[in-house]
Amino acid sequence: MNSSSVPSAHDLEKAADRLSFFIPETPVLRSEAIDKASGASLFFKMENLMPDVGAFKARGAMNALLMLQPKERERGIVTHSSGNHAQAIAWAAKSYKQNVGGDSISTFIVMPSNANEMKKRGVREFGGTIIECEPSQSRREEKVVEIQEQTGASIIHPFNDYQVIAGQSTAVRELINRIHALHDIVVPVGGGGLISGSALAAHYMVPGINVIGAEPEGANDAFRSMQTGVLQKNDTVNTIADGLLTSLGEKNFPIIQEFVDRIITVSDEEIIAAMRMMWERLRVIVEPSGAVPLAAILKQREVFKGKRVGVIVSGGNVDLESALGLFKANV
Amino acid sequence: MNSSSVPSAHDLEKAADRLSFFIPETPVLRSEAIDKASGASLFFKMENLMPDVGAFKARGAMNALLMLQPKERERGIVTHSSGNHAQAIAWAAKSYKQNVGGDSISTFIVMPSNANEMKKRGVREFGGTIIECEPSQSRREEKVVEIQEQTGASIIHPFNDYQVIAGQSTAVRELINRIHALHDIVVPVGGGGLISGSALAAHYMVPGINVIGAEPEGANDAFRSMQTGVLQKNDTVNTIADGLLTSLGEKNFPIIQEFVDRIITVSDEEIIAAMRMMWERLRVIVEPSGAVPLAAILKQREVFKGKRVGVIVSGGNVDLESALGLFKANV
Repeated sequence: MNSSSVPSAHDLEKAADRLSFFIPETPVLRSEAIDKASGASLFFKMENLMPDVGAFKARGAMNALLMLQPKERERGIVTHSSGNHAQAIAWAAKSYKQNVGGDSISTFIVMPSNANEMKKRGVREFGGTIIECEPSQSRREEKVVEIQEQTGASIIHPFNDYQVIAGQSTAVRELINRIHALHDIVVPVGGGGLISGSALAAHYMVPGINVIGAEPEGANDAFRSMQTGVLQKNDTVNTIADGLLTSLGEKNFPIIQEFVDRIITVSDEEIIAAMRMMWERLRVIVEPSGAVPLAAILKQREVFKGKRVGVIVSGGNVDLESALGLFKANV
Repeated sequence: MNSSSVPSAHDLEKAADRLSFFIPETPVLRSEAIDKASGASLFFKMENLMPDVGAFKARGAMNALLMLQPKERERGIVTHSSGNHAQAIAWAAKSYKQNVGGDSISTFIVMPSNANEMKKRGVREFGGTIIECEPSQSRREEKVVEIQEQTGASIIHPFNDYQVIAGQSTAVRELINRIHALHDIVVPVGGGGLISGSALAAHYMVPGINVIGAEPEGANDAFRSMQTGVLQKNDTVNTIADGLLTSLGEKNFPIIQEFVDRIITVSDEEIIAAMRMMWERLRVIVEPSGAVPLAAILKQREVFKGKRVGVIVSGGNVDLESALGLFKANV
């Protein structure tokens, strides 16, 4: 695979083969009650049940790590993330050593000083080194470059990276191989790594499937980018979906423009209601970002009525007490 | 299958074939963090992720329904249950009609007036008829007989029934077919339907596996029955594991005596700690009863150290607010 161009169908197949040893297939769950509420037949792809990492991010992180040269792996990996990508990189390095052997791969994770304590715990448990920095995008990026210069470590960006995109595509590949005759697949949109991989996989595997993005109103850069045809940024963000705050990457946007049908935006109230429905009816812990696709389906019932719809549930890393607080406040 | 004798290996195979059309295989999940905490390799069989019903009870209820004669099904089914069996019977009748066709099968569910509102909602959603009665075992049983006399409906007992036992055995069958070389399987014990089916399946399929029961201290009739060799009752019960309050059935006890290795009892504090660990690390909603096996493993680490252990997670029907209340009180 050429790291500097959009992954081909063959590149995605190779990524799936490569990951099959490290990433177990995640379950697909259904609920008659949620089908009734939505008027559609929903197939939930449970990336929150990804072992240990609790999010799809394990796929892209591991694929990018496996695509490094041995010499590069020796010098370690550096990245910045406030959330699931941080855990995924630390996990991938640990899992590689456990399963393949060799020396430990150092991982340097630049995290904002205000990052979620649970996600920091995850990074530490997997043996990652946390480097705290002031919570701003520019400080995070500067810090990454600084560490790269000191250590020679390779940068693995959370989404603006074709190897990461190829890795993330494997969730939709598994879903399509397992569930036939899907009309639509609804995917959360943050930086765009998951949805660009999903859209490529669907396009190559079953060209007729619509891939639809679901985005919080309070971080709606993808919606605005699609409307204007020009990549937009979020200057400010205001949503509980803390996995979807980042703006689309430059490598992600053109893929989304070409292969994603549309973006639906939802409010925090709609996200919390969908999240509660999933906790109660699917009996799983879903983080707010993971409930955004169901919120979009429930909001635009007419779009999905009577259809077979795949729903990518991106992650389940949420503090239990704060989730209950959300439910209580939303009654 | 002869309804009046302990199911044979062949009976269990036939039950599995019969159910395969109605019951999807439930996932097996793992967690490195829980493995580390326990010192063992744990394979969690997620019966809480059983679609719609959220518990293994769908298996036994459906098998018993399918074993009725067509004439019997026409006259309906009557049972008593405060919990998951109630939902499972109503679900089985609905699922039979949806998938096989024919007239609706009436289900009459005698529930104590103080039953959990969420579980009553489940019964109603599946089209079951709830008949409330005073919350005592004798009143419930009288009421069932009364309805049977009026309607001619067949009784499907929640656990003291060989067809129900054969149905429940299919959870362990799936686990053994999926995960090889298990040393032990730990199963919650209430009336004994699940553990007697599990013990038979393990015995017939891989005779060397130890099946171990996990029971709340506050409803420890199975522990006492095994100690004394005589079937004991719970005169009073005091535990949050509301799915495990009933005493062992007469048909269940001899099977348990012959094929279950031992019973481990745990306190409510231990149950809540295990439950929280499962919510956080497996990212699933587990009801207190479903966390009793992990609580037993964490309590007796030396028994399970270094072993490959199957853990049957029986159900996930719990009110979110009350579960969070348990976590808060247990800090």
